[in-house]
Amino acid sequence: MDYEDYFRAQIDTLRREGRYRIFADIERQAGHYPRAIRHDAGATRDVTVWCSNDYLGMGQHPKVLAAMHEALDRYGAGAGGTRNISGTNHEHVLLERDLAELHGKDAALLFNSGYMSNWAALSTLASRMPGCVIVSDEMNHASMIEGMRHSRAERRVFRHNDVADLRRLLAELDPKAPKLVAFESVYSMDGDIAPIADICDVADEFRAMTYCDEVHGVGLYGATGGGVTERDGVAHRLTVIQGTLAKAFGVIGGYIAGSAAMCDFVRSYASGFIFSTALPPAVAAGARAAIAHLRDSGMERDRLHERARTLRRRLDAAGVPHLPNPSHIVPVMVCDPVVCKTISDILLDEHGIYVQPINYPTVTRGTERLRITPSPVHTDADMDRLVSALEDVWARFSLKRAA
Amino acid sequence: MDYEDYFRAQIDTLRREGRYRIFADIERQAGHYPRAIRHDAGATRDVTVWCSNDYLGMGQHPKVLAAMHEALDRYGAGAGGTRNISGTNHEHVLLERDLAELHGKDAALLFNSGYMSNWAALSTLASRMPGCVIVSDEMNHASMIEGMRHSRAERRVFRHNDVADLRRLLAELDPKAPKLVAFESVYSMDGDIAPIADICDVADEFRAMTYCDEVHGVGLYGATGGGVTERDGVAHRLTVIQGTLAKAFGVIGGYIAGSAAMCDFVRSYASGFIFSTALPPAVAAGARAAIAHLRDSGMERDRLHERARTLRRRLDAAGVPHLPNPSHIVPVMVCDPVVCKTISDILLDEHGIYVQPINYPTVTRGTERLRITPSPVHTDADMDRLVSALEDVWARFSLKRAA
Repeated sequence: MDYEDYFRAQIDTLRREGRYRIFADIERQAGHYPRAIRHDAGATRDVTVWCSNDYLGMGQHPKVLAAMHEALDRYGAGAGGTRNISGTNHEHVLLERDLAELHGKDAALLFNSGYMSNWAALSTLASRMPGCVIVSDEMNHASMIEGMRHSRAERRVFRHNDVADLRRLLAELDPKAPKLVAFESVYSMDGDIAPIADICDVADEFRAMTYCDEVHGVGLYGATGGGVTERDGVAHRLTVIQGTLAKAFGVIGGYIAGSAAMCDFVRSYASGFIFSTALPPAVAAGARAAIAHLRDSGMERDRLHERARTLRRRLDAAGVPHLPNPSHIVPVMVCDPVVCKTISDILLDEHGIYVQPINYPTVTRGTERLRITPSPVHTDADMDRLVSALEDVWARFSLKRAA
Repeated sequence: MDYEDYFRAQIDTLRREGRYRIFADIERQAGHYPRAIRHDAGATRDVTVWCSNDYLGMGQHPKVLAAMHEALDRYGAGAGGTRNISGTNHEHVLLERDLAELHGKDAALLFNSGYMSNWAALSTLASRMPGCVIVSDEMNHASMIEGMRHSRAERRVFRHNDVADLRRLLAELDPKAPKLVAFESVYSMDGDIAPIADICDVADEFRAMTYCDEVHGVGLYGATGGGVTERDGVAHRLTVIQGTLAKAFGVIGGYIAGSAAMCDFVRSYASGFIFSTALPPAVAAGARAAIAHLRDSGMERDRLHERARTLRRRLDAAGVPHLPNPSHIVPVMVCDPVVCKTISDILLDEHGIYVQPINYPTVTRGTERLRITPSPVHTDADMDRLVSALEDVWARFSLKRAA
């Protein structure tokens, strides 16, 4: 077997199917978000980023940067070890307290990424609890699916956001078996929001644990940025709230929050937690500054939701079709993989507007889209340019207009 | 089922078996490594860290900190997205080039941690290559084992560093099946080093790919810090060299280096790479500064190995038993879990010396140890205090002396 040939053939398959990814090489400009410099074939050019998950622009917030500078000078660059072997910095301890408080829980546990927190927590909970059955929303994120798969626990999948289907599945299970209902609050690609209270009602009825991925909710919803679970007044009902420090909080890292015993259990048994170097103390300090700011300030959240409403209204006026949803995510529907990629290239090359095309397998075939993430750092003038550019490509490709 | 009761019972089991971990809550003092402040029950106290994997103290190096400060001001705190969706910063691109060059390979691929790079690369390579059999050293790290397990590929385990046993296993396999030999260069807990050239000879004979985890080697061995594979002149023979940015390079992150097609294959198919926010640009910038410094300067490596030799000689003089090995890791053997934990507590509380006890399951029962990691930042005076403290506890507990 020629391994190199095999690797090349697999890559060629992706190219043929139009699924080969080329990463845009950019430099976001702190203090000037959403502006970035794009590197391409040795040249550079200014672009406006419309697809970042730094939803509130906290990655350039003076408080976040100041906390990180100070922590760098104080503690140095890295943690220097796993949490157990010299890698627990006091900032990690304080951050876990802040995260517990943010969600009104007893405890929280920090991971190096949101992906790792989902993978490690779900695989540990489901594999270390004999006979545990996971009941999972069909649209759950890859990190959740891989965690469930790694656990080798039995898994049942309910129709997306369909509480009746969840109920049907739970009713079929052994009443004595441990159960875990896993879902997200805000779904990344469609921007729709789960009926969390209803899911908790059904879970309670069948004595199932609940696991809610709030990565697209924390910082963005709720009076103190506790997410949709805070907004809906249901945070206390969830067994596990999982979140990220890499989106609304502008840094990197993931976490779970819940009871002290649950967090201690995952802390003590999760391989992906135990055997990995802890996050740099400066990252923890930056996250703490972002969380504290967004706890006290609702301005960024208000502006985010105003920007999303305004963009939708302007897209409607221009006849550019977008998926209706109650969140801050604006999916502009193209529904053709080749056109989606071509449009994205034109926006970038001709208009200096960067929106990554979202194609299969991230979304189902026929629902290809430009996933636009408006934010407080986008001005009216930015929006003028975006909508005008979209009108231009919509006309040029004779794309279907919204009614 | 009462989930809380279950979690508590599982934690109680760990306590009963003496395996419950309490993390030391410290603040390393940049500019004053190995000094740290320890938080305990509301009080603070100065300690000297003797168990960090920031092996060269690069976490406090002025070049590393300057690069991180500059990158923070320039790009902001986080990457703002996955590598594919607005998260590729130019620093990531440059870092991957630097890592490829460090190992004399065509390409490299960056992950959020060493754990994730092993898990994602091994699981992708083995699961995406039909019929692939992994032949794995019995002492491989948890992240490698979980990656292999996740792939669900057939796995054979060879006796630790035993090339004859590896050969025997490879000879039993279908000659036409794809094969991957997975091992480490420096093993973390015993500090022994693999016979890499011999492993490559056998792998070549049976046309197997080779995967070498160099996390305890990169930066520390070889003329430019390329690891044991550079020192031994065998880097070009490995299919995959995996490394970390969190130990000798003082920051956080993991990577693989190899052919362009192999890296592109993993980049395109590894869920743990695709669906995770990229590392902060400042982390990439800090890693680049550390790699560049250690490529040009051998001083830190020389001093590390001198410190390890000196500590061994002084332990020998004091009759404190340690495991002989050819690396920079000095395992002081206690061989009793309770005594090991007690000694560690005494060193910390009475002597201000922090060495984490290493017990089962990290090492096999009966081989409990203090894993000491001397580094260029430890002075002769630090060593005087360490050896004198160890002599004290060895006498107090009437522990077995070395011959």
